[in-house]
Amino acid sequence: MNAPLDPEFATRCRDSFGRQKAMALIGAQLAAVEPGTCEIALPFRDDLTQQKGFVHGGIVGMIADTACGYAAFSLMPAGCSLVTVEYKINILAPGRGALVARGEVVKAGKTLTVARAEVHAEDGRHVASMQQTLMMLANTPDTAE
Amino acid sequence: MNAPLDPEFATRCRDSFGRQKAMALIGAQLAAVEPGTCEIALPFRDDLTQQKGFVHGGIVGMIADTACGYAAFSLMPAGCSLVTVEYKINILAPGRGALVARGEVVKAGKTLTVARAEVHAEDGRHVASMQQTLMMLANTPDTAE
Amino acid sequence: MNAPLDPEFATRCRDSFGRQKAMALIGAQLAAVEPGTCEIALPFRDDLTQQKGFVHGGIVGMIADTACGYAAFSLMPAGCSLVTVEYKINILAPGRGALVARGEVVKAGKTLTVARAEVHAEDGRHVASMQQTLMMLANTPDTAE
Amino acid sequence: MNAPLDPEFATRCRDSFGRQKAMALIGAQLAAVEPGTCEIALPFRDDLTQQKGFVHGGIVGMIADTACGYAAFSLMPAGCSLVTVEYKINILAPGRGALVARGEVVKAGKTLTVARAEVHAEDGRHVASMQQTLMMLANTPDTAE
Repeated sequence: MNAPLDPEFATRCRDSFGRQKAMALIGAQLAAVEPGTCEIALPFRDDLTQQKGFVHGGIVGMIADTACGYAAFSLMPAGCSLVTVEYKINILAPGRGALVARGEVVKAGKTLTVARAEVHAEDGRHVASMQQTLMMLANTPDTAE
Repeated sequence: MNAPLDPEFATRCRDSFGRQKAMALIGAQLAAVEPGTCEIALPFRDDLTQQKGFVHGGIVGMIADTACGYAAFSLMPAGCSLVTVEYKINILAPGRGALVARGEVVKAGKTLTVARAEVHAEDGRHVASMQQTLMMLANTPDTAE
Repeated sequence: MNAPLDPEFATRCRDSFGRQKAMALIGAQLAAVEPGTCEIALPFRDDLTQQKGFVHGGIVGMIADTACGYAAFSLMPAGCSLVTVEYKINILAPGRGALVARGEVVKAGKTLTVARAEVHAEDGRHVASMQQTLMMLANTPDTAE
Repeated sequence: MNAPLDPEFATRCRDSFGRQKAMALIGAQLAAVEPGTCEIALPFRDDLTQQKGFVHGGIVGMIADTACGYAAFSLMPAGCSLVTVEYKINILAPGRGALVARGEVVKAGKTLTVARAEVHAEDGRHVASMQQTLMMLANTPDTAE
């Protein structure tokens, strides 16, 4: 539905994701990126859990945040950077086992983009829903200063 | 302002936090817990960063989420458990250096509690604001099933 | 997809909506209610506008809130009442002309329900997206005390 | 704490508020505006209520939204306009009697402003908490096109 402004969007997103050391820390992978959508996969690990043995709600938020971010970034022009303005997440069920967060752009504006993400567990359970606002920074490198 | 229902609230919160392996993974510490408030401290580490070298927004969310959670848990009776219903976070500035998230209960209801957290960086910068809803599960152990 | 617990759900929702004097004040109508979904229609009126002549963002929020509410209420048993716990709304475009808010249940839990609403203008433009949490109050009349 | 960029901020806010026909419809008044804060007062009226006789949650949202908006607008330069990007509101208690929404700027950025509002009832009860994001449109008239 969305035509990417940058034909190299997938490489650009994968390179950026590869610089996110926090994603490596939790073992998250960029499973797919298409124009306006992105999937982040998170294999289960015991060190990602909270006090009751489920994946920590903040970790669920991390992968949903990142799925929204690269869904939005895929539609942006080369040479820009992206910041998360805010997000809201509902935790619908405990995160058991491997998780996948699928982000999708709701509206790609000139400055602001609104995206959503759904997080599902490997047993099919719907774990979380996120709604997020992002801001494009034109002509700003997407790398450390 | 808030009188704890459980005089052993601090021990109960610290024990529960100690079971959060995800907090150990990112190096977060429960710095303080009083009736209705909680501080989570996060020393800076390079492996917590996103593509531009700042602390990942999802990690900022994790410590704010946890600060709200134990602020709420401190006011609850012994023998109950707590789940995060939802939260909304605005990222106000890039997370540079060590961070502290301070959570505070806005309203402790019978079933639902609303809390807020502010995240500041060690240079004093206001990094994020969260507003969160939590639900108490009465007579439910706060441990793995 | 959702089977209603109460076969009289439509009448129950319409009666409840009919008691919302604030909906009459703004001229909103309950256009449709099915198990787990609800549409609220709002004809344009000049006295619903903000300083730039668009429908006030708070009015957009009112119809989205109500659409989520009756989407949720349609799935609840007879004899209960419903309260809005919280909602988050992104305004995607100025509200021009008549609006329709379509609410849909994301997850109907035992106590809490999560719903979403999309608001569109008559020209097809996507005006707003809401994500909402509601709480059922069992055995509580849905009328004035 | 905040120095206004426009010494005529109060007149500018009051003029803008005076053009909000939706505020006249519900009987809301701009009770106070200072640099970075704003109070909107809403006398109780029976036609503002929902099915249980309390002030409609969407109306509570309207005054909180407007209080955040003019808190933000007070700090902006003359000649600009403001749009609500999104907001999240928790309803903490039923809205009984007259209400006051007090908005306050959390962070005034170059493009985006984050604000909060608290709504209290005349009996002192805390009715709602909002967290909102707004965007400044530079060199754009704050009037109908």
